Amino acid sequence: MKVAVLGTGGVGTSIGTKLVRLGHEVRMGSRSAENEKGLAWVRSLGAGASLGTFADAGEFGELAFNCTSGSGTVPALEAAAAGLAGKLVIDTSNSLDFSNGFPPTLFTGNTDSLGEQAQRALPTSKVVKALNTVTAAVMVEPGRVAGGDHDALLCGNDAEAKARVTDILKGWFGWQGVVDLGDISQSRGLESYVALWVRLYGALKTADFNIKIMR
Amino acid sequence: MKVAVLGTGGVGTSIGTKLVRLGHEVRMGSRSAENEKGLAWVRSLGAGASLGTFADAGEFGELAFNCTSGSGTVPALEAAAAGLAGKLVIDTSNSLDFSNGFPPTLFTGNTDSLGEQAQRALPTSKVVKALNTVTAAVMVEPGRVAGGDHDALLCGNDAEAKARVTDILKGWFGWQGVVDLGDISQSRGLESYVALWVRLYGALKTADFNIKIMR
Repeated sequence: MKVAVLGTGGVGTSIGTKLVRLGHEVRMGSRSAENEKGLAWVRSLGAGASLGTFADAGEFGELAFNCTSGSGTVPALEAAAAGLAGKLVIDTSNSLDFSNGFPPTLFTGNTDSLGEQAQRALPTSKVVKALNTVTAAVMVEPGRVAGGDHDALLCGNDAEAKARVTDILKGWFGWQGVVDLGDISQSRGLESYVALWVRLYGALKTADFNIKIMR
Repeated sequence: MKVAVLGTGGVGTSIGTKLVRLGHEVRMGSRSAENEKGLAWVRSLGAGASLGTFADAGEFGELAFNCTSGSGTVPALEAAAAGLAGKLVIDTSNSLDFSNGFPPTLFTGNTDSLGEQAQRALPTSKVVKALNTVTAAVMVEPGRVAGGDHDALLCGNDAEAKARVTDILKGWFGWQGVVDLGDISQSRGLESYVALWVRLYGALKTADFNIKIMR
């Protein structure tokens, strides 16, 4: 498949690399088609990997992963909006504000979320919030934590889109448990959890962890 | 031991009842020493159970559990402050705002927390945030979820107080895993998680769940 990966940071390169290795054609999107990190990523992978603007990548992909930083999410999606019309967009972003150091605060608070902002920026796209609750390496290789015995969380307005994301998480990335929390406004819960994640990261001294929902 | 339980709601009665059954003397605190729910609780348990004002209970207890509602937490602690000076106070509260229905928002946001507000209201007390991440019944009977195979989270400024709470959680209530997140400001993480908890509750259709930290 042709997949857009918006963002050239740790999440974008982690997901982009995994998708190329799975045999997909990946166009990474950036503000500039000459982005140094993006070009280095393309060189490291060769065939299957390309770089373009956010708009280029949005046109290219049959589906897209938003892997931009929280502050860059809405501008990136607005730039890619035309190409992403009607498509599935998997939003992995977090509204982290490091301006007061670590741990960061969340600039969306708990009465809005980046997932909702993404859906508002892309009104005809099918936005599914997912993967924002784990570190980049765990997103595409859940087995590095407890043999994969933990849960992915997602939400979104479109049931078919969520079923497709569940297939992607399980079939492409190897997730075992996927919990659907409901519509895109449930992103507030997925993103608020990250205020706990950053503190668990501080206490555990590793990013290789996740939660399992025990009943 | 003599224990104060501030609050006559579901959390207060659940913890108060467990403590009486363990053989402790429990004084429940309320705005009024004639509080109907509190009096009914005393009648249901008999010896070992008593009711007083927040101030009475604070004087009575060698340690205290704050089980008031989020909006009632600071006024209750201020009323009990003299008696609680220097004592251990286990804060279970959540800043839930149901004014816009379910799911609630958190009125403290993620740049403050009730744990910190409690410590500020009780500057010489040793406030430990704990148990706010599970429903009342699970607080005192973790085995009702997955045989107890999940984690309690706590934080606070005083290492000895946290060690004592860890002993209480394990020895009195039966918790197996207890994760210390650091100083009282980490309450922001424990309380922000509740924005996810309320949505998991909505999706799972039961309050009998908790998270396990998988590494």
